[in-house]
Amino acid sequence: MDQPLAYVHVNKDRFLAELAELIAIPSVSTDPDRRDDMRRCAEWLVAHLRSLGMDGSRVISTGGHPIVYSEWCRAQDAPTLLLYGHYDVQPPDPLEQWTSPPFQASVRDGNLYGRGAMDDKGQLFTHFKAIEAYLRTAGRLPVNLKIVLEGEEESGGDSVSVFLADHKHLLEADLAVISDSAFFAEDVPSLCYGLRGNVYFQVDVQGPGRDLHSGLFGGSLHNPIQALSEILAQLHDREGRVAMDGFYDDVLPLASEEREAFSRLPWKDDDYRRGLGLAELYGEAGFSTLERLWARPTLECCGIIGGYTGEGVKSVIPSHASAKVSMRLVPNQSPAKIASLFEHHMHSIAPRTVRVTLRCLTRAEPSIVPLDSPGVRAAVAALREGFHKEPLFQRDGGSIPMVASLKHTLGVDTVLLGFGLPEGNEHAPDEFLSLSNFFGGIGTVLHFYQELHSSFLEYRHRWVRSISGMSAQKG
Amino acid sequence: MDQPLAYVHVNKDRFLAELAELIAIPSVSTDPDRRDDMRRCAEWLVAHLRSLGMDGSRVISTGGHPIVYSEWCRAQDAPTLLLYGHYDVQPPDPLEQWTSPPFQASVRDGNLYGRGAMDDKGQLFTHFKAIEAYLRTAGRLPVNLKIVLEGEEESGGDSVSVFLADHKHLLEADLAVISDSAFFAEDVPSLCYGLRGNVYFQVDVQGPGRDLHSGLFGGSLHNPIQALSEILAQLHDREGRVAMDGFYDDVLPLASEEREAFSRLPWKDDDYRRGLGLAELYGEAGFSTLERLWARPTLECCGIIGGYTGEGVKSVIPSHASAKVSMRLVPNQSPAKIASLFEHHMHSIAPRTVRVTLRCLTRAEPSIVPLDSPGVRAAVAALREGFHKEPLFQRDGGSIPMVASLKHTLGVDTVLLGFGLPEGNEHAPDEFLSLSNFFGGIGTVLHFYQELHSSFLEYRHRWVRSISGMSAQKG
Repeated sequence: MDQPLAYVHVNKDRFLAELAELIAIPSVSTDPDRRDDMRRCAEWLVAHLRSLGMDGSRVISTGGHPIVYSEWCRAQDAPTLLLYGHYDVQPPDPLEQWTSPPFQASVRDGNLYGRGAMDDKGQLFTHFKAIEAYLRTAGRLPVNLKIVLEGEEESGGDSVSVFLADHKHLLEADLAVISDSAFFAEDVPSLCYGLRGNVYFQVDVQGPGRDLHSGLFGGSLHNPIQALSEILAQLHDREGRVAMDGFYDDVLPLASEEREAFSRLPWKDDDYRRGLGLAELYGEAGFSTLERLWARPTLECCGIIGGYTGEGVKSVIPSHASAKVSMRLVPNQSPAKIASLFEHHMHSIAPRTVRVTLRCLTRAEPSIVPLDSPGVRAAVAALREGFHKEPLFQRDGGSIPMVASLKHTLGVDTVLLGFGLPEGNEHAPDEFLSLSNFFGGIGTVLHFYQELHSSFLEYRHRWVRSISGMSAQKG
Repeated sequence: MDQPLAYVHVNKDRFLAELAELIAIPSVSTDPDRRDDMRRCAEWLVAHLRSLGMDGSRVISTGGHPIVYSEWCRAQDAPTLLLYGHYDVQPPDPLEQWTSPPFQASVRDGNLYGRGAMDDKGQLFTHFKAIEAYLRTAGRLPVNLKIVLEGEEESGGDSVSVFLADHKHLLEADLAVISDSAFFAEDVPSLCYGLRGNVYFQVDVQGPGRDLHSGLFGGSLHNPIQALSEILAQLHDREGRVAMDGFYDDVLPLASEEREAFSRLPWKDDDYRRGLGLAELYGEAGFSTLERLWARPTLECCGIIGGYTGEGVKSVIPSHASAKVSMRLVPNQSPAKIASLFEHHMHSIAPRTVRVTLRCLTRAEPSIVPLDSPGVRAAVAALREGFHKEPLFQRDGGSIPMVASLKHTLGVDTVLLGFGLPEGNEHAPDEFLSLSNFFGGIGTVLHFYQELHSSFLEYRHRWVRSISGMSAQKG
């Protein structure tokens, strides 16, 4: 282990320069104009993985954006680890709020800034550089490794699901790992064992057949912006609860050991509130902030538009208005069931004066993994070595749809070994990854591969049994 | 009168070609990139008025967009008429909804399409061509005429108010005329004697200091889009009334002769509803559609924006959201008082979880003129001649702030001699002016000038007295 760690130490600057090259490719999957950049990014990754000494590296075309596959399966008596990640990034807008250009990586105050620095290019790179360190020093990895990188994580595409279903044999593995989450806080290494799911809707409200002058027509018809506002305003009650019959029915209550684990985390509502620049927090009555974020479902409006939105005045009643509504789900809520509840509820509250249409844009299952599984134990040991601290357990309010897909399609559980920070601005301007977490992350991945190898050698029978005994439903 | 009418008849095609030239100048006053086009439009108008034989035509620079002034004051024993109009137009967006390009005038099905065709370039042109017809045939006008054209009507600028206040002597007149309104319906010539006022606000809701990931942060703070929707939803009650204490306090009830005049108008709620492509109408309980449009104040949201509004999904809680709110006022509501009521009300309902800021972008007084004044009588006679039908009386839901300014600053009443159609799409794609109304409008203006002249000769003393006895408060 000393040799790979020493290799990392002397190559730090080069690692950052390579990551900057990757960030420079604007792989925005939701933007049709970036299609060529998406392929260019996939090709860059394949070339890079080849240069590290990985086998079978290739770009695989799909109905959407390409998938990158790569492997190193020459280890005897070692488990097979499947690394999943995504090379697509969020749109960079609003551009004017970035301190440095989003696709030009910039190091300031010990952080690497750039779109994708945290989500997910920078975190993927911790694995790439750990692989490089092993292959250039020991000439081998402690585990068999299969890598699947997709380009539709941020756009809700399903190419990777199709790919998994079509390549079950190729992708056989004992455990999966994803590095696309965050520490609980700076200097508080933690392991995320649960994720929220998601159901995301486009809501369109159609009023008159054309835009109308608000003076000449105002007062005689239901303004679509008003109708949409009235609909959205009915989706929460006065206690901050989602006001939809049955919405909370299947929510799995927190286990007592989870509450205990949460209580060990350093958390102050006041600090959180101040960090967000807010006068007051808000949320579902009867739950703490961490419970609201991790163990309770929520409904957020991610976008709204209608009428004139430029500078100055325009006297118009628009013919339509629209919104984007995201519902984050927790175990054991079913995205399909919630989507259907939402559709039914929206149609029941929509006034007859306008036409409301709904389109489900994306769905993701919530997930949770047991705290005492060998994969989680290896990750805890690796984090302890990589960051010289006892890691804590946490959940995460975001969604990684892949965790549920890996379980359902390939039968493998996933360890979430994330190195971002909560304040890392993923999906926002000035996204960053701290340099200490990046390099500590490489060290952690080196240890993680080794821990998996040792665990497998020592307790192969139990390890394998235990892995297959994991459940996505147990907490 | 025969000679000017014959002159119009033989020059129709040229008149349309000239109007097309004027429409081709994209004089969008709210768009800072169109500043040069605004001046070019003013210069075009001055050149055109000079070519007609008008005197003293000039572009007058202001703090905002320029004003065009022109006059012909060589008539003895004739009243002085002040023609006000505006050469600026609404923004053309959404561009994709235009059948032909907005700044390329196009004749289809007996209509002239183009931005400004109705509001107000095409209607101004009825006066220009009537002037031309008189000066090229009789060599003189039946009235003294002063023309003031501004470039900030659509952007709520106050340059013309300053100009009026600074040039009271230059602008002395017996009566003002504005052609910027519409017939009640196609083939139903009507005279508009009342306008609504307007108060227009920008509403900004500030939440967290930066955009946040809706998964990682969702559930723990008040989403600004949700907060804005909840605020807007509270501005109407379940009966469609504006839910603001005192909002209706000063509303002048309809006089019985007005109700009677309205009842003569051809109107069917069902036709109106169908024409707008709506399943149901909506409005303040207890009032007919025409009353809601003309005699009742209203509150409309003219724009809303927040978060991600592009294609597909983005998981974001935006740091802020904003809306534009327009309140149309009726006699005797005061825009200043309503603006202050609105500010007070909004701050009283704003939750403490977000920061709400308000900015009043524009204000306009409502107005009304007596049905039996000499100016209105001349207009009725002229419409009867111009369109060979008995004109009806109507009000209009829109605002022409100038009417109140002319009264308050110069002491003159205004006749609204409009030739548009309600379905003319002003402020919307495919704006048009019907050709029959354009040419009928020119004929009407020819008669209107003559009627004013005759009325002045015959009853000068009474005419003048009566004019000065007009009141903006009497209906």
